[in-house]
Amino acid sequence: MKLIKGLDDLLKKNFNIVIKDKSLLDEAFTQASYVNEHPNENLKFYERIEFLGDAVMQLVVSDYIYKRYTKMPQGRLTRLRAAMVNEESFASFARECHFDQYIRLGKGEEKAHARERDSLLCDIFESFIGALYLDQGVEPVRAFAAQVIFPKLDEGRFDEFFDHKTELQEVAQKNGPVSIDYELLDENGPDNDRAFKVAVKIDGKELGVGVGHSKKNAEQGAAKQALLKLEPDQA
Amino acid sequence: MKLIKGLDDLLKKNFNIVIKDKSLLDEAFTQASYVNEHPNENLKFYERIEFLGDAVMQLVVSDYIYKRYTKMPQGRLTRLRAAMVNEESFASFARECHFDQYIRLGKGEEKAHARERDSLLCDIFESFIGALYLDQGVEPVRAFAAQVIFPKLDEGRFDEFFDHKTELQEVAQKNGPVSIDYELLDENGPDNDRAFKVAVKIDGKELGVGVGHSKKNAEQGAAKQALLKLEPDQA
Repeated sequence: MKLIKGLDDLLKKNFNIVIKDKSLLDEAFTQASYVNEHPNENLKFYERIEFLGDAVMQLVVSDYIYKRYTKMPQGRLTRLRAAMVNEESFASFARECHFDQYIRLGKGEEKAHARERDSLLCDIFESFIGALYLDQGVEPVRAFAAQVIFPKLDEGRFDEFFDHKTELQEVAQKNGPVSIDYELLDENGPDNDRAFKVAVKIDGKELGVGVGHSKKNAEQGAAKQALLKLEPDQA
Repeated sequence: MKLIKGLDDLLKKNFNIVIKDKSLLDEAFTQASYVNEHPNENLKFYERIEFLGDAVMQLVVSDYIYKRYTKMPQGRLTRLRAAMVNEESFASFARECHFDQYIRLGKGEEKAHARERDSLLCDIFESFIGALYLDQGVEPVRAFAAQVIFPKLDEGRFDEFFDHKTELQEVAQKNGPVSIDYELLDENGPDNDRAFKVAVKIDGKELGVGVGHSKKNAEQGAAKQALLKLEPDQA
């Protein structure tokens, strides 16, 4: 079949992956709408494989961040995993891998631009992972993630997560809303080498102080210190 | 250390498991409250390992039910997994494994009967799984689950999930409340061999009919037929 042949070449060329059981690829890239339009072909659609792929990916990402951030406490690990494993990021990975071009859709879904929809692309990314896992086990999935997902951490794709101010907001407000204020304590030095000192207060209580050559950097430092107080095992 | 020595013997005797890196067991069975009371011992508590154990268990259970129920659609697989992987069932597995006796708790937590609390026992079950995975990989976790978890399916522990009436309620109401009514259509035969015929109606529309020697059995049959209509790929 042409579709799967092209996908086969793509996987071999870009990821050095050869799926032995081609029927798994067929299943992983076929939407229910296509099956419904071809009732006599005895086709399967991706949903069951996706169920499995989702679990495999959760494990592979959990394992990676657990070992990479050896002091990161559970709460942050959970939030980092959620930042990496979600519809938006998986859809973008699917696009980067050109998986969108190989999905078998029914005509109605095609017309409705399902091929561009994040929810479908995320599903297909997970069902591909499921197929790879069923064909070859966990390790090849880990190797694939090491090409497609893990480098994104260093490329800054999840930097919002590592933004201390955002993080502090999440941690401080997990049990309900609180006020978080940054207060400029001091500012001195010449214009080209100015230094700022900022405190962060949560519900009026000072929890951290930071210094930096910009207000933003000083605020990040203050937020980091506050995080260390709120979650003492913070990495 | 006595605690871990006893645990070591238990694991060897009951599950033929020998954890090579004993520090993983220490970590997996130690609560933060204990660490806080022993600040000079450089101890770790279980939460990070539990994060990993949770993901491993999700995969191992997903893989098992995916392969065992080869036609069960994704929605049911997800619900069955949720019925198996949750605080209550994991806490009961922890008790059956006698893990509760080996948790290191702070004095306050001990007094507050934390050792009997489902949430802690579930955590410890997952952190043990995390330790086993870190020490030996996925396969030994699968073997452990094959002893402790999977047989529960045949023992009827999750029969509520396989109850067609309960299942129909969940499926039919996933997009909002609907009325589900069972209606006795016919009843005949002698008292010791009575036969019942029941229809199930969802929002007034008949979706299934069942027969049986009790009303309950006939209702189950009707619910099963309705499920097949609502989710045609139902196993």
